[in-house]
Amino acid sequence: MPIEPHDAVDIIRTKRDSGTLNRDQISWVIDAYTRGVVAEEQMSALAMAIYLNGMSESELGHWTRAMIDSGDRLDFSSLSRPTVDKHSTGGVGDKITLPLTPLVAVFGAAVPQLSGRGLGHTGGTLDKLESIPGWRADLDTAEVMHQLDALGAVVCAAGTGLAPADRKLYALRDTTATVESIPLIASSIMSKKIAEGTGALVLDVKVGSGAFMKDLASAEQLARTMVALGRDAGVRTTALLTDMSAPLGRTVGNALEVREAVEVLAGGGPSDVVELTVALATEMLRLAGKDDVDVAAALGDGRAMDVWRAMITAQGGDPDADLPQARDTDVVTAETSGVLTALDAEVIGIASWRLGAGRARKEETVQAGAGIELHVKAGEAVTAGAPLVTLHSDESERFARAREALAEAFDITPAAEGADADTARSVVLSRIAD
Amino acid sequence: MPIEPHDAVDIIRTKRDSGTLNRDQISWVIDAYTRGVVAEEQMSALAMAIYLNGMSESELGHWTRAMIDSGDRLDFSSLSRPTVDKHSTGGVGDKITLPLTPLVAVFGAAVPQLSGRGLGHTGGTLDKLESIPGWRADLDTAEVMHQLDALGAVVCAAGTGLAPADRKLYALRDTTATVESIPLIASSIMSKKIAEGTGALVLDVKVGSGAFMKDLASAEQLARTMVALGRDAGVRTTALLTDMSAPLGRTVGNALEVREAVEVLAGGGPSDVVELTVALATEMLRLAGKDDVDVAAALGDGRAMDVWRAMITAQGGDPDADLPQARDTDVVTAETSGVLTALDAEVIGIASWRLGAGRARKEETVQAGAGIELHVKAGEAVTAGAPLVTLHSDESERFARAREALAEAFDITPAAEGADADTARSVVLSRIAD
Repeated sequence: MPIEPHDAVDIIRTKRDSGTLNRDQISWVIDAYTRGVVAEEQMSALAMAIYLNGMSESELGHWTRAMIDSGDRLDFSSLSRPTVDKHSTGGVGDKITLPLTPLVAVFGAAVPQLSGRGLGHTGGTLDKLESIPGWRADLDTAEVMHQLDALGAVVCAAGTGLAPADRKLYALRDTTATVESIPLIASSIMSKKIAEGTGALVLDVKVGSGAFMKDLASAEQLARTMVALGRDAGVRTTALLTDMSAPLGRTVGNALEVREAVEVLAGGGPSDVVELTVALATEMLRLAGKDDVDVAAALGDGRAMDVWRAMITAQGGDPDADLPQARDTDVVTAETSGVLTALDAEVIGIASWRLGAGRARKEETVQAGAGIELHVKAGEAVTAGAPLVTLHSDESERFARAREALAEAFDITPAAEGADADTARSVVLSRIAD
Repeated sequence: MPIEPHDAVDIIRTKRDSGTLNRDQISWVIDAYTRGVVAEEQMSALAMAIYLNGMSESELGHWTRAMIDSGDRLDFSSLSRPTVDKHSTGGVGDKITLPLTPLVAVFGAAVPQLSGRGLGHTGGTLDKLESIPGWRADLDTAEVMHQLDALGAVVCAAGTGLAPADRKLYALRDTTATVESIPLIASSIMSKKIAEGTGALVLDVKVGSGAFMKDLASAEQLARTMVALGRDAGVRTTALLTDMSAPLGRTVGNALEVREAVEVLAGGGPSDVVELTVALATEMLRLAGKDDVDVAAALGDGRAMDVWRAMITAQGGDPDADLPQARDTDVVTAETSGVLTALDAEVIGIASWRLGAGRARKEETVQAGAGIELHVKAGEAVTAGAPLVTLHSDESERFARAREALAEAFDITPAAEGADADTARSVVLSRIAD
């Protein structure tokens, strides 16, 4: 066994006592953890010390760099198109990647969307696309390069060679209550994105009940931290803070969301999904050096739809195939009349997960057709007995547990009381740039 | 797999967020950790959260109780003598258990000293006694009861059935920088001592460079915490805070310390060892209901020596056998003349450990003869060229590393400068009772 240049206990003790770790110590601890020399219980003690005592800006930079250095790094510099990527911190009904990727490609940029599968109450982009018959998520690097050059758009599974330290640490944090730490979240996201080799990056940082960050101040801090990490790594990065107090659009669930994404690509779809898609595309194209383009027009005239169809076809999918439908449905109706003043995103996410649209453990499969259709959104009027949502599942015995979760989801105020719902509220709350 | 009533992540999160855990949560997490349902990395995250956020008095009581409940509990209530135990937090040259146990037994109390082996720079009582030819540490419960009834004195290995949760957590804390936490130290010590079934307990809490607690305030806090835990468990408990800035006595090392202990039992020995032995014995006898006894007399008149000889013999040892001697010695001499104003206990402990008297991992064996003889103690005059210490080891190649450690151990001030050494300083600094 080779002699190690550092001692894990010293490093944990330093962070425990609010000291600052240097670059050498951080590279060693991440590398030794990846090699299995630093044990899981040592990394979890360190993660808890970081959770409680934080990391300085320089520590965070070294930490992120060490995570990137733990694995491969893609290089898109040989492409004829400028690359620009998007990352969302995850929300309920967040199908934006689907219309966004082809939309940005229309204007000559290349979007390498290396994505993951969902865990918990927010769905994964790959799970959604896998509801399209024939579509496959696993491409090798040559296929990714070819498709980016040809179409400018690819959504596929991130290879296991990127930031393996992050993969290991992410799983550990989940079981040790060290997830909700801004430096640990920021370095996890940015190490993966920087390793993926994009030239520019737009972050969609969600705020609200359905998001990881429940309040604006934490979301802003996370956004600023990530933008700074991007800048330091030479990746042009901006962030949009966007509302996740209610689900995005009118569908939650894999095939249900693909259907809605296709509506947006056809020039229709719910206004909040369209607004966010256009805002993110505009931001991405600005970073890619394409400032004065009419983004929305490409949704109306079929150009984005053409790239979508080509992108799905290139990965074995049939864009014309019927999407899977759940075997059973169950309609939840309003008990009173009035205005729906709130529709809790987190609760809708949990109910959809219980219907079979999501997974609790990564080994589980998801139901392509399961999920929830929203017939009413916050700010809209409802009549007693009218449908609020339709539940979809292959197993009707799941409806009871979903309904239990939904019991508190709907807040209906008698219209006479002057409900203060704000239907015109913008999804984009603010923009953070360097 | 049975459904667990609690979730480890919830419990870690509560402590992480400075919340208070209830009795149910604490019993479950300790029990589930003992069963392997709560993983090492989860317990280490919890230990770090406890290290940084502390535990309330009620949490600490539940925690200690849960550690006791994780294993067996001895019961000495059938003995004809009252039981009283002593625990030292560990120091350099601390051989006090050896003369103390027979001395207390002289006056009719029973002392069940269930001890451990040493790890790091402080030696273990069992390692010391094992340098006596034939002596064995492993007794079963029937043997312990019989010897306590007959002699009132036993020093043996603590069974693995006592507080197994503590055993597991102790090993984990060592590798995760979560050792130096007052609630975790207090519950570890007290759970073992309470499980051992003693009726009363005197704690020797060491303070100074050679001790775990480097300053008086932390030592006092630890002592008060342990005294309260003893009271709540129905064990009469007091604590003496004692000085560990310099080694106790004039020897450090296994057989070397036994030799010094026998000198004390013969009515001689270094004054600090005698003082502390008598102080602890007086305190123990007071708790055992024997107030007005002349403790020191039993060292002078051979009564304590008689019990010692019987105790060693009962465990297979030969009290008349020659003690092992190290194969090589090396004398360190003074470079200048003056007064030795300081003699660092921790450094002496580390040097002795490097000579082979201690172990770094529990699988290692120790050298019976290895250690250090101190020819000069703090406050005494030295002449350039005169011996300061003699190093003992079976392997002469260890001398260089020990001398390296000792480089800064001796602080010699020219006599003219008016050295402020205080030779008359008492070892016992203060007493903490309920």
